Amino acid sequence: MTTLFTNVTALLMDEASTTLRYGYVAVEGSKISYVGPNRPQGDFDQIIDCTGKVMMPGFVNAHTHIPMTLMRGYGGGHDLQSWLNDFIFPAEDKWDDRAIAAATGLGLAEMIASGVTCIADMYMRTRVIARQVLDAGISANLCVGGVYFGDPAQFSPETCGDCGDMRALFEEWHRAGDGQILADASIHGEYTSSAPLWRWMADYAQAHGLGMHVHVSETRKEHDECKARHDGLTPIQILDRYGVWDVRAIAAHCVYTTPEDWEIMARKGVSCVHNPYSNLKLGSGVAPVPAMSRAGVNVALGTDGVSSHNSVDMFADVKLAAVLHNGVSCDPMAVTARQALGMATVDGARALGRDTGRIEAGRTADLILVDFDAPNLIPCHDEAEDLAFSAHGSNVVMNMARGRVIYQNGAFLTLDLEKIKAEVKRYALPLLFK
Amino acid sequence: MTTLFTNVTALLMDEASTTLRYGYVAVEGSKISYVGPNRPQGDFDQIIDCTGKVMMPGFVNAHTHIPMTLMRGYGGGHDLQSWLNDFIFPAEDKWDDRAIAAATGLGLAEMIASGVTCIADMYMRTRVIARQVLDAGISANLCVGGVYFGDPAQFSPETCGDCGDMRALFEEWHRAGDGQILADASIHGEYTSSAPLWRWMADYAQAHGLGMHVHVSETRKEHDECKARHDGLTPIQILDRYGVWDVRAIAAHCVYTTPEDWEIMARKGVSCVHNPYSNLKLGSGVAPVPAMSRAGVNVALGTDGVSSHNSVDMFADVKLAAVLHNGVSCDPMAVTARQALGMATVDGARALGRDTGRIEAGRTADLILVDFDAPNLIPCHDEAEDLAFSAHGSNVVMNMARGRVIYQNGAFLTLDLEKIKAEVKRYALPLLFK
Repeated sequence: MTTLFTNVTALLMDEASTTLRYGYVAVEGSKISYVGPNRPQGDFDQIIDCTGKVMMPGFVNAHTHIPMTLMRGYGGGHDLQSWLNDFIFPAEDKWDDRAIAAATGLGLAEMIASGVTCIADMYMRTRVIARQVLDAGISANLCVGGVYFGDPAQFSPETCGDCGDMRALFEEWHRAGDGQILADASIHGEYTSSAPLWRWMADYAQAHGLGMHVHVSETRKEHDECKARHDGLTPIQILDRYGVWDVRAIAAHCVYTTPEDWEIMARKGVSCVHNPYSNLKLGSGVAPVPAMSRAGVNVALGTDGVSSHNSVDMFADVKLAAVLHNGVSCDPMAVTARQALGMATVDGARALGRDTGRIEAGRTADLILVDFDAPNLIPCHDEAEDLAFSAHGSNVVMNMARGRVIYQNGAFLTLDLEKIKAEVKRYALPLLFK
Repeated sequence: MTTLFTNVTALLMDEASTTLRYGYVAVEGSKISYVGPNRPQGDFDQIIDCTGKVMMPGFVNAHTHIPMTLMRGYGGGHDLQSWLNDFIFPAEDKWDDRAIAAATGLGLAEMIASGVTCIADMYMRTRVIARQVLDAGISANLCVGGVYFGDPAQFSPETCGDCGDMRALFEEWHRAGDGQILADASIHGEYTSSAPLWRWMADYAQAHGLGMHVHVSETRKEHDECKARHDGLTPIQILDRYGVWDVRAIAAHCVYTTPEDWEIMARKGVSCVHNPYSNLKLGSGVAPVPAMSRAGVNVALGTDGVSSHNSVDMFADVKLAAVLHNGVSCDPMAVTARQALGMATVDGARALGRDTGRIEAGRTADLILVDFDAPNLIPCHDEAEDLAFSAHGSNVVMNMARGRVIYQNGAFLTLDLEKIKAEVKRYALPLLFK
């Protein structure tokens, strides 16, 4: 399959912050084959005229729990502990594969319609999630959020369920769809596991060349209790002792990380995933993003689960990331539009170890078109400013993932949304909440 | 004109936080005539089936500068002083009536499409804005942001341009359209005027029964410089000495207001308008909204001008108001979904002195319908949670202002959007920016 985009205005998200104008972008198979001012030679299976639209790389949503879409707004208006213990955990206990599949489909529809082409998802029943993602067409780094509450002396990978799930995910799904699915290793968090699991996951990731995905210092309580347990070592520091950061790694949240943590993260290539809506909504705090960036840490952007957001619109997260730090530091230049767009694209790609997030020949063809003729995008003095501050997910009129158009003008080409909605209503919701 | 809404699910925004289900809402002329479980007798000119949708009061956007829509993203990426001095002020110097009309039309289109039915707008050339608003159909409290940089000893209302504009706005437009347009008195800010103007505006408002609209303590600099000029008195306190708060009043921003200020505001009925996106984006800070509310101050919600937001989607502002204070105070219950929705509806109505913002017989029929069959609003465990955290402006499928449907399923019934876009492109943009 080959595609030629004509009359292209595009934010390439390259180092020079280039905006291509009156240009062409060609796609062959799953890769971008040409980006530039001249029409490439040859015939194309489809030609897409981009007049009135702006192209940018599809979003990398670098920290998600996609089936939690089913818990959108569930238990809202309660304090954190009641919300978790009385609402979220009891519902999560009731998942089965069929419900996970429906919830994943719904979450994917919302993501695809608003321009996401790649995710890093941590949840359970990940093999079901993998199947849904493969069919939907976006890319995903999937992981089983490893927990171990047992006696550390009794730990065995043969009896730890999450070790078994990790192995099964790796063996059945790693690199499926020509790399569309990647299995990452994962520790849910320092506070929900202990040293034997950390060491096993670190070794497993090393042995198989996998990445790592961990919740880190999301709340003050988590951060302080870790220090109390481990002679003053933070989650980043104690996990570092067990080799957890010796592979490409994603540290989600990082709200209470310290300059000493950032030094480790920068040195070892650990990316922070900033989840500003979730951190604000749950009262967790504000991650020190500008300081982390200055310290050399790669910062990506995520929505977290829909249960704590309660939506998936990466444009909203880009905007919040671009304004929040200005406000809390009283510095209108703390994070710029281009920096926030970078977190959601090229920096997210780096966090996930993928060649997406930038429009360049040879990279994966993850591309979206945004309708700049919509009233909320007129006038346009600067495409990056409009994309970061004025665009909504609903302005996305095309989503191409891995070279395939999967969404166009409101229609899903790989998902049957009505079927998903029916399955959510008839099966998944009654199972979990009734 | 009479309208009957059937199969209504509605957030009434009453004291009891009632959600009407399987109900009816009837509208006669510009007023709601019935809200309840039984179908009212009689024939109706139109019947609107609300199956799959949720009704709520239209939004009150309580602090706007609508023509600044034309400056969306203009000068972004520069520090505050460069942005104002090198971009915004030079463009504003070039306005004429024709450009203001086009810019206002564009701003109104964006607002109407995302569910706004009432605004409090401060700008210049307000008589042109009034004409556009009257035709578009929403309600507006308009004011000339009064400035006076001259020698206080030389002040004369006969030579102060903004006093003349205030009088002309009042005489030509106050209560036009059966109260659709209200003229408010206004002082742009303590730092852009002096005592003679404050006294004149306060007296003018008193004499004519008008409200008052003032920028207050938006930045640390403004607040501290006021105290330095006025023996330690804050903007709220010094303006209080001149009777500015002796009428219904709107104090926009209030980022640096103090407990002493809140006592005055609560006692005199001065509403704060919280503009969270603008305050964050410009690096102004975070207004102490939960503390103000506890002190008895009515808090409304506004977008501020599009130049510092850079969009108009009150759903986004509701969401930000509902999460921001949780995050900065590390309290997940600091502002609830219902509180934030209240700021954007019934509390905004109180700030503007209008009987909108609540679905109740006898009130103005300002009503919107939100499509709850959209992927980002499925599932729905609680309508208020979904409206506050998950809905976008693009989910609005109907906007009824003062009993008239002005927007339905993407079509504007009182605005010619294509004509506005053409006028913006051909006339207004070249005039201001070329």
